[in-house]
Amino acid sequence: MNEFDVISWISGRLPEAPPEVLVPVGDDCAVLRLGEATWVAASDMLVEGHHFKGWASPEDVGYKAVVVNVSDVAAMGAEPRFVLSSGGAPDPETTLRCFQGVLEACEGFGVYPLGGDTTGSGALTIDVSILGQCFQPPVLRSGARAGDLLAVTGELGAAAAGFLALESGDGGLERLVRKHLRPEPRVSAGRTAARLGVHAMIDLSDGLASDARHICERSGVGCRIELEKLPVAGDTRGYLERRGEDPEVLAATGGEDYELLVAAPEGLLEAFVEETDVPVTVVGEITEKEVVFLRSGKPVEGLSGWNHFAR
Amino acid sequence: MNEFDVISWISGRLPEAPPEVLVPVGDDCAVLRLGEATWVAASDMLVEGHHFKGWASPEDVGYKAVVVNVSDVAAMGAEPRFVLSSGGAPDPETTLRCFQGVLEACEGFGVYPLGGDTTGSGALTIDVSILGQCFQPPVLRSGARAGDLLAVTGELGAAAAGFLALESGDGGLERLVRKHLRPEPRVSAGRTAARLGVHAMIDLSDGLASDARHICERSGVGCRIELEKLPVAGDTRGYLERRGEDPEVLAATGGEDYELLVAAPEGLLEAFVEETDVPVTVVGEITEKEVVFLRSGKPVEGLSGWNHFAR
Repeated sequence: MNEFDVISWISGRLPEAPPEVLVPVGDDCAVLRLGEATWVAASDMLVEGHHFKGWASPEDVGYKAVVVNVSDVAAMGAEPRFVLSSGGAPDPETTLRCFQGVLEACEGFGVYPLGGDTTGSGALTIDVSILGQCFQPPVLRSGARAGDLLAVTGELGAAAAGFLALESGDGGLERLVRKHLRPEPRVSAGRTAARLGVHAMIDLSDGLASDARHICERSGVGCRIELEKLPVAGDTRGYLERRGEDPEVLAATGGEDYELLVAAPEGLLEAFVEETDVPVTVVGEITEKEVVFLRSGKPVEGLSGWNHFAR
Repeated sequence: MNEFDVISWISGRLPEAPPEVLVPVGDDCAVLRLGEATWVAASDMLVEGHHFKGWASPEDVGYKAVVVNVSDVAAMGAEPRFVLSSGGAPDPETTLRCFQGVLEACEGFGVYPLGGDTTGSGALTIDVSILGQCFQPPVLRSGARAGDLLAVTGELGAAAAGFLALESGDGGLERLVRKHLRPEPRVSAGRTAARLGVHAMIDLSDGLASDARHICERSGVGCRIELEKLPVAGDTRGYLERRGEDPEVLAATGGEDYELLVAAPEGLLEAFVEETDVPVTVVGEITEKEVVFLRSGKPVEGLSGWNHFAR
């Protein structure tokens, strides 16, 4: 049993949804119709020893807990508005420092902190819940169609490289470390994608290989992704090669990029490239079935071989 | 520095509230105006070793995490509607059992689970965020006026007695143990109180001695509470006396009752007694200043001596 099994068990036992619930558990956020407006809601928890270690300051942890939630809202094409944050730490000083990071992120993303809870806890733990407001219909994971192109914002693998740098104590890699500790959620790009009506969107938290499967599973389609096309920056590639890592494989599987993965027909994607404020790179396309990763035209087995997601 | 210092620090550094925020941090819930409706929001986190130990099953913990949030909504006079729940546990099976308790409570209180997160964590940890809907103006902590009576729903001290029974392994005390593990939030009573327009309300989570101070502090008043009047059930009293504990002191300080404390003028309180579905007991009154606990007409120092809250 793993996290996905737990979510799947819960999804199968949900009570009947009240009329306000437009989209229940299963997307980046749930979608609610409250009065005349559409809202999205999500929560994410970070735990010391699981999501971060001593190399992250409490401020970094609080900041990132807001970012990962803001990124979920961005992936719906919505605007982050309100958070609740509950923090547990071994001492009040650590709690306070963590909440300082929460407040810094709130200010940075224009999100208002509604409240929360503080408690003692052996391991620093922070859970943030977010409410985002939709100014156009939210973009779900389920709308991808065969023939759509798949594109990602920004770059991949930098956060994973930063994580390796933090774990090994390698210096001189501040940009990569910052990509891991203080990722930039793509709120503006997400809203642009929603305004243009892209077919499907997800944020890259688990890693492209896993998150592309989430889109394919929810949309009932497959995809073909070419590893050569993944946008890997020079410093990411250089550091990973020095370590003997495969940059493209880590870019596809390392996770924590908090970029957006978008499925849209070619014309629509061209408009997205033109109108958004971050680089957009086509990495593959949506197919009828099977999730396939290719390199030099050949399937890469370790990535595409998870048959329980294939169709 | 303690939890209240952390909350106070945060409260002093909040960004300017957007127009939707009617009440920010500082009450049982924040209050939001979304479209034509008023909503309340709160979150509470429970951590193994701090809020519970091995005597609580994961199902109990998940259930109670929902209860404590539902109780916050009840204290605003609102209806609990939606929750997000994030759980961390050493293994997926424990996470699943905890979420089973969450779902059981959701079903029991008519709350819909919108989603959440699961993660690994050395200590079982669950954070629930709640949205409640107001069908009449919410009741705040800040409306108490000198001359109001102070009354509590249900009974006090049973949950604290149940906690002692669990800690010491004393058997034959199932009712008290259940009061600790599966408290009953007073949603219907809270809505009745709001409909009648009581002046102030709070739920008794920290204990009457502490929570009465929260009302007094927010309302700029004092209060006089008579320990003899506290509603302590026979089994609670019997068990505590056998242990050499002072039943009234524990009823005032033990916490986790999840009853409601209400401040209202006499006539209004009579209507509340008549119309609500739980027993209501007058325990004291609101005064101009100072929080005083009396027994046989004499101040009880250990309870009323916290001068930093007195006015």
